[in-house]
Amino acid sequence: MADTAEMIEEDEGLPKNLVAMVVDIVNADDIASLNTVLNPLHPADVADLLEQLNERDRAALLALWKDGMDGEILSELGDDLREEVIDILGPTELADAVRHLESDDVVDLVEDLGEDQQEQVLDALNASDRLVVEQALAYPDESAGRLMQMEVVRAPSHWTVGETIDYLRASDDLPEQFYHVILVDPRMKPVGYVTLGRLLGTPRPIHLTELMEDSFRTFRVDQDEEDVAYAFNQYHLISAPVVDEDDRLVGVITIDDAMIVLDDEHEEDILRLAGVDGESSLTDKVIATTKRRFPWLAVNLVTAIFASLVISMFEDTIATLVALAVLMPIVASMGGNAGTQSLTVAVRSIATKDLTSANVWRVIRREVYVGLINGAIFAVVMGIVGWVWFGSPMLGVVIAIAMVINMVVAGLAGTAIPVVLEKFGIDPALASGAFVTTVTDVVGFFAFLGLAAVMLL
Amino acid sequence: MADTAEMIEEDEGLPKNLVAMVVDIVNADDIASLNTVLNPLHPADVADLLEQLNERDRAALLALWKDGMDGEILSELGDDLREEVIDILGPTELADAVRHLESDDVVDLVEDLGEDQQEQVLDALNASDRLVVEQALAYPDESAGRLMQMEVVRAPSHWTVGETIDYLRASDDLPEQFYHVILVDPRMKPVGYVTLGRLLGTPRPIHLTELMEDSFRTFRVDQDEEDVAYAFNQYHLISAPVVDEDDRLVGVITIDDAMIVLDDEHEEDILRLAGVDGESSLTDKVIATTKRRFPWLAVNLVTAIFASLVISMFEDTIATLVALAVLMPIVASMGGNAGTQSLTVAVRSIATKDLTSANVWRVIRREVYVGLINGAIFAVVMGIVGWVWFGSPMLGVVIAIAMVINMVVAGLAGTAIPVVLEKFGIDPALASGAFVTTVTDVVGFFAFLGLAAVMLL
Repeated sequence: MADTAEMIEEDEGLPKNLVAMVVDIVNADDIASLNTVLNPLHPADVADLLEQLNERDRAALLALWKDGMDGEILSELGDDLREEVIDILGPTELADAVRHLESDDVVDLVEDLGEDQQEQVLDALNASDRLVVEQALAYPDESAGRLMQMEVVRAPSHWTVGETIDYLRASDDLPEQFYHVILVDPRMKPVGYVTLGRLLGTPRPIHLTELMEDSFRTFRVDQDEEDVAYAFNQYHLISAPVVDEDDRLVGVITIDDAMIVLDDEHEEDILRLAGVDGESSLTDKVIATTKRRFPWLAVNLVTAIFASLVISMFEDTIATLVALAVLMPIVASMGGNAGTQSLTVAVRSIATKDLTSANVWRVIRREVYVGLINGAIFAVVMGIVGWVWFGSPMLGVVIAIAMVINMVVAGLAGTAIPVVLEKFGIDPALASGAFVTTVTDVVGFFAFLGLAAVMLL
Repeated sequence: MADTAEMIEEDEGLPKNLVAMVVDIVNADDIASLNTVLNPLHPADVADLLEQLNERDRAALLALWKDGMDGEILSELGDDLREEVIDILGPTELADAVRHLESDDVVDLVEDLGEDQQEQVLDALNASDRLVVEQALAYPDESAGRLMQMEVVRAPSHWTVGETIDYLRASDDLPEQFYHVILVDPRMKPVGYVTLGRLLGTPRPIHLTELMEDSFRTFRVDQDEEDVAYAFNQYHLISAPVVDEDDRLVGVITIDDAMIVLDDEHEEDILRLAGVDGESSLTDKVIATTKRRFPWLAVNLVTAIFASLVISMFEDTIATLVALAVLMPIVASMGGNAGTQSLTVAVRSIATKDLTSANVWRVIRREVYVGLINGAIFAVVMGIVGWVWFGSPMLGVVIAIAMVINMVVAGLAGTAIPVVLEKFGIDPALASGAFVTTVTDVVGFFAFLGLAAVMLL
């Protein structure tokens, strides 16, 4: 046991041979060894282990280790796998697994399940827990209401440190994790908060209002979780109260929840920039993955055909000088890459609210200059390459001019397109790539082949 | 004042017209209005505002508002801008600004400054703070030692709740933020921790050991900050002790520090995948940006020329049938996009330790199947397009076969190349793109033109 734990601490993440070892143990039906290996693991690590097994081994492990499955492991699993595991567990095991979870964890667990499975989990809860979970599920998807926990530690703002400590000692259902005491007025409106550290370091007679922190932010229950995550990150919040439309305290969001949202948003952005649906995960099946990759490829096919139409305008030119067919992908490719660089910086800067109407023209100007300078350098290189390769100085001049044009356009389009998409309410991470590469392909082919038609023939 | 604060809460991020308003105020030399607008802002928002001004307005604002600049705003600025602002501030203002920061914030502030500026800031500190900061700077860059704060709240493990609270009340220099009391043995080795919530909710005579949390993780002072961020995210840690090589407690890392590292790593990965040096920011100047974009474009030029060499092998084929030049970019482009999808999923899965030697073959098999299915669908579409467009059924067959081949190769290369790069210790986010698109370009052009040469001529 100690060994396994130590191996994990050395390297972070699962030890290399753990998966193979577990498969051996499962195949040998050796339940004692399985307990020895799995029980000391953190639920997050058990979930990772399950994700790395193939479907058959996973089913065998779960059959052998049904009692070991708990709600925390279920919480850590990806959506697809969670449904698979819930199907394997019987109703009794499922009830045992979820009974000990806090309400916000149950909400997180069930919100993406199918209706049948959701009902199954809710049935396993006692009446009062079920009520709390159903209340949370009534808030919109991806809202502060879904994210918050409803167990809040609060105190009237007129209390002293001593009164607060006595109250906390008398409470028998304090949340597992809390970092602040939220001060409320008589109408339950939050007016500030006191950190537990301050509370502990202050003599009993002092009033809470004297210990209140200066900066204090509340969220509305219907606010987007993305806003919440942004604010936690921007203002280094640890926890923040959530209020309803009447400004009454209804819950609290803590930094660990915000961190998970931020992590998910990032992941989604990275994948969307690459044309993959943000919900995708490594345990998705072939068909699900195929469907998720298809739309972007379909869009790309249309834009690629569009670029081909541009080329076909110059069929005669190419027939006269085949060297053009050899060199034309270089111009398009360099523009595409420069455009992707610009658009990625722009998309991220929009997400972090660093790129705004106040500085967009300055950034576009910068990108155009960058395109001009890098374009000029690569124009010289490619001009020489084209000249030497095909023995035609004019061909070198043509590819050089086309290169500069396309890289300037790349900088312009790479910044302007995400900004415009954002203005129209379209996620720039998802859609910018198709537009920008269409522009750089079309401009690249048109500039190069058009100049060649005029200057060379 | 209340107005500004409310505007920010409504939307998160700076209010839309704030930048324009501040520029007007600065141009009017209206210091009173400037204070009214800027003083209620969070330092992070002031830093964002400074980043959105152009260089001239920024200098004018700072000249007018020197006293307003504090260490927290400096901490929030990006590296480039921080150097610019420190240059504008005189030594007196700089000293005032940094004097009130906690030691780990000073470390964060100075670690990336040039030597001159670093010396300037250190000179502004009192002797004991300076010692602490210099000690932290002695740890390797991007290590747990750099990330941690040295002010730790600890207690001998044999203490009771009452003794601990009395000790905390008697301390006059508790850290601003702390969430746990770390229990140490007589040799200063951390043995566990107690949350402040538990401490507050428990009667005085109870012993701390009875309140200890089960799961407990420590980091070594020389451990990579990336490992630290991974563990905070994976195990939902709030704070964790840092120990030296003799297992003695030397500091504590809190979740907000880990969140910043995680955010930076993500940002770096996104930008690297797009071929942009991860350190880049929106306030970089033209020359700095040009330099940062250049290496990837240079690599891309080489690979594009390589792809052109493949095309040039088939110059005669293209001269006979110019339609090939029109259609060939489509095959390469679809492969490139499919490859980028696979490689992005693979790179992210490697970063989150979900893609390991245990499941790599399963994932590669899945990607190949996905390439096969999507390839087959687009093969049919493009086969028909090619046939109808150029009136040649065989040309349709050629492009269809080439499409399937290239998309299968894309899935294979998109997964295998990042995995192999990782094995060789090369950051897959940085290098995979060049390799994968080279493969899909070369295979795309070769398969399409080669098949055409054999089947059509």
